[in-house]
Amino acid sequence: MDTIPELKRPAFARWLGTTNEVTRRFLGAGRIPGLINIAGGLPAPELYPAAELAAIARQVIEEHPEETLGYAPIEGLPDLRDALAARFSTQALKLGRANVLVTASGLQGLDLIGKVLVEEGGLIAAQFPTYLGALDAWRPRQPRYRHVDLEDASLDPVAALQGAQFAYTVPNFSNPTGKLVGLPMRRALVEAAHRTGTWLVEDDPYGGLHYDGPPLPRLITLSGDRQPGQVYGGPVVYMGTLSKEVVPGLRIGWMIAAPAMIEALVMAKQGADMCTSGVTQRMALVALEGGLIERLRPVIVALYRARRDALCAAMAEHLSDWFEWEVPVGGMFVWAVARDPALDTDRLWSIALKAGVCVSPSSVFDSTGANRRALRLNFTLNPPNRLAEGVRRLAAALKTMADQSHD
Amino acid sequence: MDTIPELKRPAFARWLGTTNEVTRRFLGAGRIPGLINIAGGLPAPELYPAAELAAIARQVIEEHPEETLGYAPIEGLPDLRDALAARFSTQALKLGRANVLVTASGLQGLDLIGKVLVEEGGLIAAQFPTYLGALDAWRPRQPRYRHVDLEDASLDPVAALQGAQFAYTVPNFSNPTGKLVGLPMRRALVEAAHRTGTWLVEDDPYGGLHYDGPPLPRLITLSGDRQPGQVYGGPVVYMGTLSKEVVPGLRIGWMIAAPAMIEALVMAKQGADMCTSGVTQRMALVALEGGLIERLRPVIVALYRARRDALCAAMAEHLSDWFEWEVPVGGMFVWAVARDPALDTDRLWSIALKAGVCVSPSSVFDSTGANRRALRLNFTLNPPNRLAEGVRRLAAALKTMADQSHD
Repeated sequence: MDTIPELKRPAFARWLGTTNEVTRRFLGAGRIPGLINIAGGLPAPELYPAAELAAIARQVIEEHPEETLGYAPIEGLPDLRDALAARFSTQALKLGRANVLVTASGLQGLDLIGKVLVEEGGLIAAQFPTYLGALDAWRPRQPRYRHVDLEDASLDPVAALQGAQFAYTVPNFSNPTGKLVGLPMRRALVEAAHRTGTWLVEDDPYGGLHYDGPPLPRLITLSGDRQPGQVYGGPVVYMGTLSKEVVPGLRIGWMIAAPAMIEALVMAKQGADMCTSGVTQRMALVALEGGLIERLRPVIVALYRARRDALCAAMAEHLSDWFEWEVPVGGMFVWAVARDPALDTDRLWSIALKAGVCVSPSSVFDSTGANRRALRLNFTLNPPNRLAEGVRRLAAALKTMADQSHD
Repeated sequence: MDTIPELKRPAFARWLGTTNEVTRRFLGAGRIPGLINIAGGLPAPELYPAAELAAIARQVIEEHPEETLGYAPIEGLPDLRDALAARFSTQALKLGRANVLVTASGLQGLDLIGKVLVEEGGLIAAQFPTYLGALDAWRPRQPRYRHVDLEDASLDPVAALQGAQFAYTVPNFSNPTGKLVGLPMRRALVEAAHRTGTWLVEDDPYGGLHYDGPPLPRLITLSGDRQPGQVYGGPVVYMGTLSKEVVPGLRIGWMIAAPAMIEALVMAKQGADMCTSGVTQRMALVALEGGLIERLRPVIVALYRARRDALCAAMAEHLSDWFEWEVPVGGMFVWAVARDPALDTDRLWSIALKAGVCVSPSSVFDSTGANRRALRLNFTLNPPNRLAEGVRRLAAALKTMADQSHD
């Protein structure tokens, strides 16, 4: 019976071959003992409101057993959708339940938007460099990318958006660069989206993490201002999450968009996981209604501001011969660009790993993998002394690399 | 500024246009007041172990705050993967952590398998009729289908599997037909998968719900028997879930397969939602380790067996002129096939909805929508008196339809 040799298994889909090597190794590198991880976008676990969330978890199941333990509506729990609609409404921006989809994390939102808007070879106009998770989410759709540099003063937003299925932006403290998109560019992007019809995705996980100065208006708010008082039907697709301001472990995110877009996303969500857990959705609702985000924010902001300053101080002491950077006004990351365009940060990444520090090389934020001149450094996970030690190890790796080059 | 008219928004992806009308209406029909819903595959909520799960929820967050509230590993919590590997191992079938991926529900597993194996136009050999959720999960990949009738005694399993990317089966109490695939066909399918190389997906949400007689061996167990004692590397991809045997609201499922397949699925999971909630994963682990499934099973089985009998008795009284069916030996569904091949169950579905009962027409379990001769009736959600009333309403709808045809 076993004498007939087995045939080869069918090939995996082509997109699985498109992940670059560094990305694979990068994702596996986080668990080396003693390693200082300043690569990820992880919140500080000492800030998790564990006791409060433990009590909420028990409460929501006891008080709402059928809603939390049964299948939830695909769109999300009605009360949570209403609370999110109210939270993001302004005087001009009118949002109702039909504008809201609850997702299992911001990343799921990216998967869903790819499914509903991208055929194989479809065009995405993506803020460049681009969040690694977004590139991963869209890989199975095999899109083409148009790189959009929102810091380029000569950028024509209409030309940037025209003909794309959607434009992807992280206006608040972009991942990976930590940059804040200013008000004139925000207005220009929204204007371009309305002019061209192109959907404009506003991915906003870090919007609450501003350390210097007030927040700028959201793109969806600016879009809503154009048709005040009407239920929102414009081109902006706003995405938020609890991951960076409360905890990642609930896996709760949301999308706010025109009802027609929400309907399409619901069809995709139905085929992705049917619904999000009623337990974590109800927990999110209690957290939102109880003002948990607002109570946590000053604590988080103070801690992260101090850590940003500690990282930047250590960088100024040890890295300024090799790299230049701006001190970010919010978010989780510093983007360091090599002064020498020939410095290869993929190579540096490997050497740094051996020196005991993991950083994010710029190649993973480029769909082509070609950008090898920068690093993304995270300052939220580690306390100041670990950040300083991580930077010292990185500087040692730079010296090792320089010595190797001179051999 | 607003005088320039907005251009049309980019088109949604083509697959969104392929959902049939009945499916759309069917999914929206569940919330009509007074309606008796025997359409879905919903467990009986009175069996949810709410008090126990509420206590577990609090406990897991208090005892494991970083693991439950932080980002979990993409593959799932190591302890949960180990527990699942141990649970499904047999003397011959050797499973380790590398064989297991935790998913956010069985449905997510279907989405992931589509992503890693199907290019546009790729071929899936699917047990026919086919679970609606599987068709939904694979729609964005735009596959072709080969219908495989596992009740056809003349079926050649090698011919059925040859050349397909994977074969999809629900051996235990298939959704929608409730049929149990017998041992000879199980052996033949596994043999064919080994011969052809084709991946063989064993979707097993109902495996614990057998009402008459003992369970049959799983396909993955039969496959493991061929290479006893080696870490499993064969062609079967086994999928399970807590949804039907504990509660759906935790959204916890699992995939057990060769490590190479798990690695590919992990890449897809990374771009789908990054990870599943640590809260619900730890809850699943405590439930599994505490024997919750084994304690619940006799209660669930007794209740569902009685409801199956009640539904079938009502059907025998009211529907036997129009339909024929087999009493299912497990699962959640009775599959009723019209005696008259011209009877249109899509039309009946609409009339029945007006008569106050929602059933599942066979067209939604056919990727072409052409199969309009059968109904799927669920017996797990409603108590016997509601099941009987639902069947009476269905009989009234059949009489209305007959009267309309005579006009």
